[in-house]
Amino acid sequence: MSRQSQTAGSWVVLSGGSGGVKLACGLAQLLGERLSIIVNTGDDFTHLGLYIAPDIDTVLYALAGLVNEETGRGRRAETWTFMGALAQLGGPTWFKLGDGDLATHLDRTWRLSARERLTLIGAQQARALGVTARILPMSDEPVRTVVETDAGGLSFQEYFVREQCRPMVRAIRFVGVGVARPTREVVEALSAPDLAGILVGPSNPWLSVAPILAVPGMREVMRASGAPIVAISPIIGGKAVKGPTAKIMVELGLAPDSVAVAQHYAGLIDGFVIDRADQALQKDLRLPVLVTNTLMRSLDDKLALAQQCLAFCHRLGSRRAGAARVLP
Amino acid sequence: MSRQSQTAGSWVVLSGGSGGVKLACGLAQLLGERLSIIVNTGDDFTHLGLYIAPDIDTVLYALAGLVNEETGRGRRAETWTFMGALAQLGGPTWFKLGDGDLATHLDRTWRLSARERLTLIGAQQARALGVTARILPMSDEPVRTVVETDAGGLSFQEYFVREQCRPMVRAIRFVGVGVARPTREVVEALSAPDLAGILVGPSNPWLSVAPILAVPGMREVMRASGAPIVAISPIIGGKAVKGPTAKIMVELGLAPDSVAVAQHYAGLIDGFVIDRADQALQKDLRLPVLVTNTLMRSLDDKLALAQQCLAFCHRLGSRRAGAARVLP
Repeated sequence: MSRQSQTAGSWVVLSGGSGGVKLACGLAQLLGERLSIIVNTGDDFTHLGLYIAPDIDTVLYALAGLVNEETGRGRRAETWTFMGALAQLGGPTWFKLGDGDLATHLDRTWRLSARERLTLIGAQQARALGVTARILPMSDEPVRTVVETDAGGLSFQEYFVREQCRPMVRAIRFVGVGVARPTREVVEALSAPDLAGILVGPSNPWLSVAPILAVPGMREVMRASGAPIVAISPIIGGKAVKGPTAKIMVELGLAPDSVAVAQHYAGLIDGFVIDRADQALQKDLRLPVLVTNTLMRSLDDKLALAQQCLAFCHRLGSRRAGAARVLP
Repeated sequence: MSRQSQTAGSWVVLSGGSGGVKLACGLAQLLGERLSIIVNTGDDFTHLGLYIAPDIDTVLYALAGLVNEETGRGRRAETWTFMGALAQLGGPTWFKLGDGDLATHLDRTWRLSARERLTLIGAQQARALGVTARILPMSDEPVRTVVETDAGGLSFQEYFVREQCRPMVRAIRFVGVGVARPTREVVEALSAPDLAGILVGPSNPWLSVAPILAVPGMREVMRASGAPIVAISPIIGGKAVKGPTAKIMVELGLAPDSVAVAQHYAGLIDGFVIDRADQALQKDLRLPVLVTNTLMRSLDDKLALAQQCLAFCHRLGSRRAGAARVLP
C-alpha cells in the first residue's frame, strides 16, 4: 500500500504542550492544511492584563519554526529586556515573558477585547506566520484547569510554573467547562466527510488532554465521526518524557505506566501506541496496539512517529470498514 | 545672597515632553524631593490595549537616568524584538514600542484596570526607579488632545507620530478637559505653604502646556498660590529647538517668536525667560524678563538654566513681597 493512500483525507490531533506538539509538528509536515490540531485552553490565564494561551502559543511557535528547541516552549532568539525592566519596576517576575512572545499575547489580548473570537485570532496569527495546519482552540469559552493540591487549589500556571509541580495533586477540576462548547471549527474538523483518523497526542492525559475531552459534546462528536481514534502514550518505562505526568499518576493512586493511560482513555480510543521499551505491557492491553519508538528527539523522530500513527489509524479504519486485515 | 536661600522651599514646574523635561532634569538635580513636576496627559492614548502616557514616561525615564539621550524619548539600551514579532503577526507598527518601554505601559495598564489612580501608579514607578522628585499627572481623568487639521481631526499621536506633524493645524481641542480636575497631589503641590515658585517649562505652549492650563481650576490654584510664575520660551531665533512649535504658531496665525509666547501666557505669568539670541525682543515684552542661554545640550546647560530660573523667581518673589529690589 502506498504511503499516499495511508495518509489520504483530513486528520485531527488533540494536543496540549510538549509531546503532543512534537507529534503535531511531524503530522503538519506530512499533512499541511489537511491537519487540524485541537488544542487545550485549560492552561490559559490572564497575567498583567494579558490573555496568555500557553499551549496554543507552543503549537503556533513550533509549527512556524519559531519555537525554542531547547525548552520546547517560547520563541528562539528571544530577548528579555521587558522582564528586566518589569523587575526594575517591582512587577511580578515568576512568569517569564519574552519580548517577542509579548507580541503574540498583546495582539491576542486587544483583539479579544474587541470581541474577536479566540479561534479567529489564532487562525490569523497562524496564517501570518506561514502555518498551513489549522490550530483550533478546543473552545472559545474560558475553561480554567484548577489543580487541587495539599497546598490548596492552584491555577495551572501557579502549579506548573510558580510551584514547579511540587505540591501533591489530589484532584483536577476544569472550571467553566460545563458551559463551554466545542467551536464550530472543531465540530467541522471532527465531522469532515473525509476524516481519516483522530490522534490523541502524547500530552499529559490528566492535565492537558482531559480538559479537551471534558468540553461537553467533544467525546460524542469524536465518536460520531466514525474515524478511528488512536492515543499515543506519554509514558515510557514508567516515566514521562517531560513534565509531571508520572508524578501526578502516582499522586492520583495510579500505576505510572501506559496500561493506566490506556484505561484512562477506555471507551474513547480504538488503538493505542506505546514505546518499544514498554513492549512487555502489550499483553495487558485489551485493544489494538502499535509498538514503536515514541521518543521524539529529532525532526526525523517526529516524522517517523507521525507516519507510523497515520498508518496504524489507516489499518484500524480499514479493519472497521470490514476489510479482513490482521494487525502486525 | 547665597544659592541656598535662592532655592529654598518647594517648587513646581509644568512640563510636556522635550524642553520641559530637560529643564525638569536640571531642577530635579538641584531640588530633589522639593520639586513637583505637573505633567501633560493630553498626549496619552490607548494602543494595542495599552495605556501610554508619553510625557509622563519621558519625564520618568529622564529623571531616572534611563532616557535615550539621542532622541530625548524612550529608553536607552532599548531592544526591539517585540516590534519585529508584532510586524510578523501583521500588527500595527506606526507607533514604536521598545521592549523595556513595554514594561512601563503594561505595569500601568493592568494597575489602571484594577482601578488604581494614574498618579499613584506613576509615584510607585518613580520610586521604584529611584526618582525623588514628584512626577504628577495634571489630572487622573482622561483628557485627549485633538489636533484639527486640513487632514481632519487627529489624536495627538496620529498628528505627531503617524503624520509627522505634516498636516496644517487649524485648532487644538482638549476632549474631556471640562470634567477633569487637578489631582489632590497637584493642588497640594501648588498650595504648599513653602512654595517658592512655579515654572512653566519650555515645552510646546499650545500642544503640551495648554492642556495642563485647560484643566478647570488649574490656573486659579496657580495664581492663588501667591508664588511667582515664570515661563521659559521654547522659541529661539524664530525656531523651536525641537518639534513643531514654530510651525504650529505660523499655522495658527501667530508670529513664531517669544513675544507671541509671552502674549499667550499673559495674565498667568509674572516673568519670562528668553534666549540671548532673542535679546532684541526684550523691549517688546511688558513684564520682567530674564535673558540667558536657554538651549540645553548638556547636563551643565540644564543645571545652569534651572539655577537661573530659580534665582529669577526668587528675585520676583522678593519684589512682590515688597522688598525694594531692581531687576538686573
